[in-house]
Amino acid sequence: MKVLGTHKYDLDTPCLLIDVDKLDHNLKTMQESVQGAGKNTRPHAKTHKCSEIAKRQLEAGAVGICTAKLAEAEVLAEKGFEHILITGQVALPLKAERLISLIERCPTLMVVLDDLENAKLLDSACGERGVRANVLLDIDPGLHRTGVVVKDVVQAAHVLLELRNLDLKGVQAYAGQVQHIPVYADRREKSLACMCAVQEAFRALKKTGFTGTVFTGAGTGTFDIDTEVEDLTDLQVGSYVLMDAEYGAIGSADNEKGFTRFKSALTMLSSVVSCNQKGMVTIDAGLKSMYRDGATPIVLYPDDRDYSYDWFGDEYGKIGYTGGRGALKTGSMFELMVSHCDPTVNQFDRFYVIEKERVVDVWPIDLRGKSQ
Amino acid sequence: MKVLGTHKYDLDTPCLLIDVDKLDHNLKTMQESVQGAGKNTRPHAKTHKCSEIAKRQLEAGAVGICTAKLAEAEVLAEKGFEHILITGQVALPLKAERLISLIERCPTLMVVLDDLENAKLLDSACGERGVRANVLLDIDPGLHRTGVVVKDVVQAAHVLLELRNLDLKGVQAYAGQVQHIPVYADRREKSLACMCAVQEAFRALKKTGFTGTVFTGAGTGTFDIDTEVEDLTDLQVGSYVLMDAEYGAIGSADNEKGFTRFKSALTMLSSVVSCNQKGMVTIDAGLKSMYRDGATPIVLYPDDRDYSYDWFGDEYGKIGYTGGRGALKTGSMFELMVSHCDPTVNQFDRFYVIEKERVVDVWPIDLRGKSQ
Repeated sequence: MKVLGTHKYDLDTPCLLIDVDKLDHNLKTMQESVQGAGKNTRPHAKTHKCSEIAKRQLEAGAVGICTAKLAEAEVLAEKGFEHILITGQVALPLKAERLISLIERCPTLMVVLDDLENAKLLDSACGERGVRANVLLDIDPGLHRTGVVVKDVVQAAHVLLELRNLDLKGVQAYAGQVQHIPVYADRREKSLACMCAVQEAFRALKKTGFTGTVFTGAGTGTFDIDTEVEDLTDLQVGSYVLMDAEYGAIGSADNEKGFTRFKSALTMLSSVVSCNQKGMVTIDAGLKSMYRDGATPIVLYPDDRDYSYDWFGDEYGKIGYTGGRGALKTGSMFELMVSHCDPTVNQFDRFYVIEKERVVDVWPIDLRGKSQ
Repeated sequence: MKVLGTHKYDLDTPCLLIDVDKLDHNLKTMQESVQGAGKNTRPHAKTHKCSEIAKRQLEAGAVGICTAKLAEAEVLAEKGFEHILITGQVALPLKAERLISLIERCPTLMVVLDDLENAKLLDSACGERGVRANVLLDIDPGLHRTGVVVKDVVQAAHVLLELRNLDLKGVQAYAGQVQHIPVYADRREKSLACMCAVQEAFRALKKTGFTGTVFTGAGTGTFDIDTEVEDLTDLQVGSYVLMDAEYGAIGSADNEKGFTRFKSALTMLSSVVSCNQKGMVTIDAGLKSMYRDGATPIVLYPDDRDYSYDWFGDEYGKIGYTGGRGALKTGSMFELMVSHCDPTVNQFDRFYVIEKERVVDVWPIDLRGKSQ
């Protein structure tokens, strides 16, 4: 590829950059922190949508990789990944054929269930094709999005245990509602409250003789909080590996005003396309590149002025500044911390991997658009 | 393709549907309306990102196709399209090589300019490769995003006219700031005010001997308003062909409360993945499918209750309802009018084309992700 060796500010725009040193820092920091607390990581590929990053997460010590969608898991299985967990319920009979084929290819796959009718459909589809499915019971820790409510856990698990083509390996609980609570102490209190309620249900289930061992959950915002939940086995951390302005703005254990344990490995490069106005220029990253959600992107380069980003339609962003325009002209480069990494990444086909400001690799975002 | 003939509610989800009868209605309605007012259409492919729809727009009578990005134009040129207009300035020298190669392949291409330094770079790049570029001067009608300010038009045009490898064919002005003004009379007044100011500048330019003829601009929101601008030659209408909840909510000439001249040809199909809560179910279309911008999506099917959509994270949507849940269960289908069509379409790889509720074709969204 002739792009190798190119200085990052000579790349075509808009595009996504990954600073490999920062990525490695994030991989190492998370793994050491979680492992040091006696837990495992099971990172979420829904964030980066990139099998190359998933591979590095496993090499760093993860016990498996999460995907939100069946289609994401299909791509990973195709590339030889094992120990994939699909964290979203796969609706049957709609997706039965695809799911069973995937289990055949990847027998270590686990999938969550929160609906007993769906579970029975899966059991019977497995029976027909002669496969067994590893399943987790999804429990709602208060997000009210998916999962059975805590009081129904024992009863629901026992229905699953009766289905002979399913192996119930444990439980999942994702408390998305607490991940971005700005004040660390507040986040800690709320997360432990809801995850401990799930733990109680898990313990009640064990008292009935259940021998499944997996209790998976948590996210980047509670990576050093949910490790206090004794029975939790592994953490489904996602954003830590790339980071974004939304996570960067919340308080953390060691910094009230920012989440500085992880570095902005992911940035967006965008160039000026128009500069006919006073106090602003227009750049080529709008809604279709920089997803409008979560937080306002932050200008990292150039850093000679107080630049601010705002969306300016589908294809354009507005860079405001005070004082003179300096050296800005058409084609001038801006590097930004993205708003919300997951849906932003999903709009691009590749990451340009940067080391010491130069392109050292290009990684396909091979799970992009795999929404089914 | 075995998907042909499938009933739309048996498709895998989430996915985008196009009702071909509604699409044809929109194509015909727009073309007749604009042509009846003595103008041409030059529809924008940035909305649908699909060469098959662009082809139908030309067959309906359009004089050319607009793209926002060079990369979109490259895809269309590769498929044999001519008379492409790139409505966003192409920053040089960054994209010089690609632009010149595209002009070589597609000599009828036009590109806008609003920066004289950029224009000189284009002129010299054209000179080196022995090609001529058709250009339009981009004028700012008050959106303050791109374009030269009205008072600078004559001066800027005369600099362009001096550059011997550029053919200045006319001007462009896109008043994005008025397209979604809810009250029709208000929208009409504001659009005519800013477009007539551009027209004056265009006339002043003509008085200096300029013989260029193109004056292109306008959008779906002003499709029956800007036709009153005497010198305007063609309208860059985009959303009309698919429609969305954002445009559907503004008033129009014949309906104070909705934009009913065009039909929702585009819809999203999404299925229930969890239904353990009271008063709501969770569906599989979230931020990464239904772009969060512009307006709240509207549930079109089922229509047996007062359903409402809200985003519920990257992969999930929340469907609220009052009263009982009715027949809803895991796998139940919802069909929705999308929030903002352009960035929503850009998250998918294909349209399922529906006629009388069944799939009759699949069209690749072949300009998706072409953001450079």
